[in-house]
Amino acid sequence: MSEYITHDMTGNTVGKVEKKFFTFAEPPNEMILDSKAKLGPITIAYETYGTLDKNRDNVVLVLHALTGDSHAAGYYSENDDKPGWWDNMIGPGKGIDTDKYFVVCANVLGGCMGSTGPMSVNPKTGRPYGMSFPFVTIADMVRTQKALLDHLGIDKLLSLIGGSMGGMQVLQWAIQYPEMVRSAIPLATTMRHSALGIAFNEVARQAIVADPNWNNGDYYEGKKPDMGLSVARMIGHITYLSDEAMRRKFGRRLQDKEDFSFNFEADFQVESYLRYQGAKFVERFDANSFLYITKAADYFDLARQDTSGSGIQVFSRSKARYLVVSFTSDWLYPTYQSRDMVKAIKKSGLDVSFCEIEAEWGHDAFLLSSERLTNLVKGFLESVYNDIRK
Amino acid sequence: MSEYITHDMTGNTVGKVEKKFFTFAEPPNEMILDSKAKLGPITIAYETYGTLDKNRDNVVLVLHALTGDSHAAGYYSENDDKPGWWDNMIGPGKGIDTDKYFVVCANVLGGCMGSTGPMSVNPKTGRPYGMSFPFVTIADMVRTQKALLDHLGIDKLLSLIGGSMGGMQVLQWAIQYPEMVRSAIPLATTMRHSALGIAFNEVARQAIVADPNWNNGDYYEGKKPDMGLSVARMIGHITYLSDEAMRRKFGRRLQDKEDFSFNFEADFQVESYLRYQGAKFVERFDANSFLYITKAADYFDLARQDTSGSGIQVFSRSKARYLVVSFTSDWLYPTYQSRDMVKAIKKSGLDVSFCEIEAEWGHDAFLLSSERLTNLVKGFLESVYNDIRK
Repeated sequence: MSEYITHDMTGNTVGKVEKKFFTFAEPPNEMILDSKAKLGPITIAYETYGTLDKNRDNVVLVLHALTGDSHAAGYYSENDDKPGWWDNMIGPGKGIDTDKYFVVCANVLGGCMGSTGPMSVNPKTGRPYGMSFPFVTIADMVRTQKALLDHLGIDKLLSLIGGSMGGMQVLQWAIQYPEMVRSAIPLATTMRHSALGIAFNEVARQAIVADPNWNNGDYYEGKKPDMGLSVARMIGHITYLSDEAMRRKFGRRLQDKEDFSFNFEADFQVESYLRYQGAKFVERFDANSFLYITKAADYFDLARQDTSGSGIQVFSRSKARYLVVSFTSDWLYPTYQSRDMVKAIKKSGLDVSFCEIEAEWGHDAFLLSSERLTNLVKGFLESVYNDIRK
Repeated sequence: MSEYITHDMTGNTVGKVEKKFFTFAEPPNEMILDSKAKLGPITIAYETYGTLDKNRDNVVLVLHALTGDSHAAGYYSENDDKPGWWDNMIGPGKGIDTDKYFVVCANVLGGCMGSTGPMSVNPKTGRPYGMSFPFVTIADMVRTQKALLDHLGIDKLLSLIGGSMGGMQVLQWAIQYPEMVRSAIPLATTMRHSALGIAFNEVARQAIVADPNWNNGDYYEGKKPDMGLSVARMIGHITYLSDEAMRRKFGRRLQDKEDFSFNFEADFQVESYLRYQGAKFVERFDANSFLYITKAADYFDLARQDTSGSGIQVFSRSKARYLVVSFTSDWLYPTYQSRDMVKAIKKSGLDVSFCEIEAEWGHDAFLLSSERLTNLVKGFLESVYNDIRK
């Protein structure tokens, strides 16, 4: 642990952290993807927090959502003005207690935050992959995470946790490597991406490909499709909130003015918010990555992977305990989708706890600091941790 | 009535109809808009169905939604493959019975279906207005409809009916010209456009202005911003449906294929549907009109027009009877917004009936054939009609 504890008045931070890289699948040993395409070498960016136990049984794998990255907690430097994206959950004494657990978080395959993705240079051509990057699935992402854990000498996971597309990876892990997974915490997620979810992603993708600067994905040496990506992000931000959340956060309040402008400026705070989110996003995210990762989420359908063909026995190989959490105002992955998941888990005779948290912030709720969620996660992890010590 | 009754197996159609035009506000007598700008001349495209009674008291004004037009019922010609947009509601013996009522429907100011809007030629310059078209509000639209009714010699409306942005015009009419309005039927609408509604419109507008062909609105002599407008329309189509509607209509069904393509084709039916809707829309709609009309909807807030300043007495000048209808799966204008409207109407001591219709098709439900809605409208209109004959 670093002694570095500024930016956190309570002192309970994981402190200074470092992004690490693991490269594997060097040719000719490329990884074979779900699409049958081969990919290699593959680099995975990751971070770890806490200390790995001698018996290596205190590992919690954190899976990030669509636009997240490996930087889940702590600070990179003293000048860092913002900690990792889930710093409210991960740290000493927090929901995922780094005094007890060894936490791993990796950037997904296809991403743009250090892991191999469409903006990576294809060693065969010396140029960024762009649209020649092979199609990746949630299962492919999970394969690379498995390779990383092998590299770290970890063969059992105390737990897996993630929300939204992170939750899809949690579920995929549980059925893909059932022997490795003791417990799993899918948050605000689904067993199969809904038509509504696909619809929003598709419109966001169309906004990107409509931007002439996208240039069929070949833009790394010129102007980037910032306008398209910005619109895509705005669409996302609408889905992350909810009618109620928007009403509370913005209502019809005007932005820096007393009355309507009677022109096409951002009159309302919500317009200004969306424009800001769009503009901010293009500074940190790659448009092609957005295309690939959203499509991976759209393809996600656990039932398709049910070897029994019935579509209801998909969890039958899993041996994990589950904590499923949904949020009342989440209309991207509404509670009924979590209930379907709980039913399917129960059908396989597995132990599952389910909690729907009253939340006004829509889908984004899983990322926000919540005593309820923190306590749920903390209690569940403790219970699993104590079980293996019995 | 025309003898023209093909395309309608039941024979209950208004038959062959004709688009008419009314021009007013000729300079120097331009109309003064809410923005204080002057506009003229103004042409309004309209259609009428049924026959005006001698005492001119059987008039029903139909107000269209965002992308509608004056062609609400009937056919333009024998080769017409599609009747007007509300042909299931308007016709002999239908919900709005053209054997009894004289129905008027006009294209909104700012539109692109015959009424003056940004694609109209500015007589002062000889070129299309583009972004030099003045900003218009729902109240401005209503002003032009009032001028049209004056022209037709109509000074009382038996009823006004419209859904979505059409419903906003219904409400605006009732408080702007209270002496003229005997009854009003706002469907699937709201007294004030919500943050969520503004958010969707703003992202759609951003998709248009992000298209380089938009060229700050000056595109009438070159390539049109079809890509941007298409994305805008796709966003709209998501909001018109609902999670449940999408699940029923599309689910995760694939489009013309057995398995995933593992590329960026439209794998899912919902993707294919959205792309089709986007492509179809650009053939009939003007991108600048889309900008102006969505902004008019965003500005709509009945409470701002409450002269008492309390925001709750907004209906106090109205003398109309109301039938308010919402639809269970409408998440663009959810039922609670109709309930707020009903409360405000009641507060002013007015007669209001409210009905929430069980509907699985989301916001679009108000446009679809529904026995329930038809019977409600029919019964309400009859009751108002009989009242004035007592």
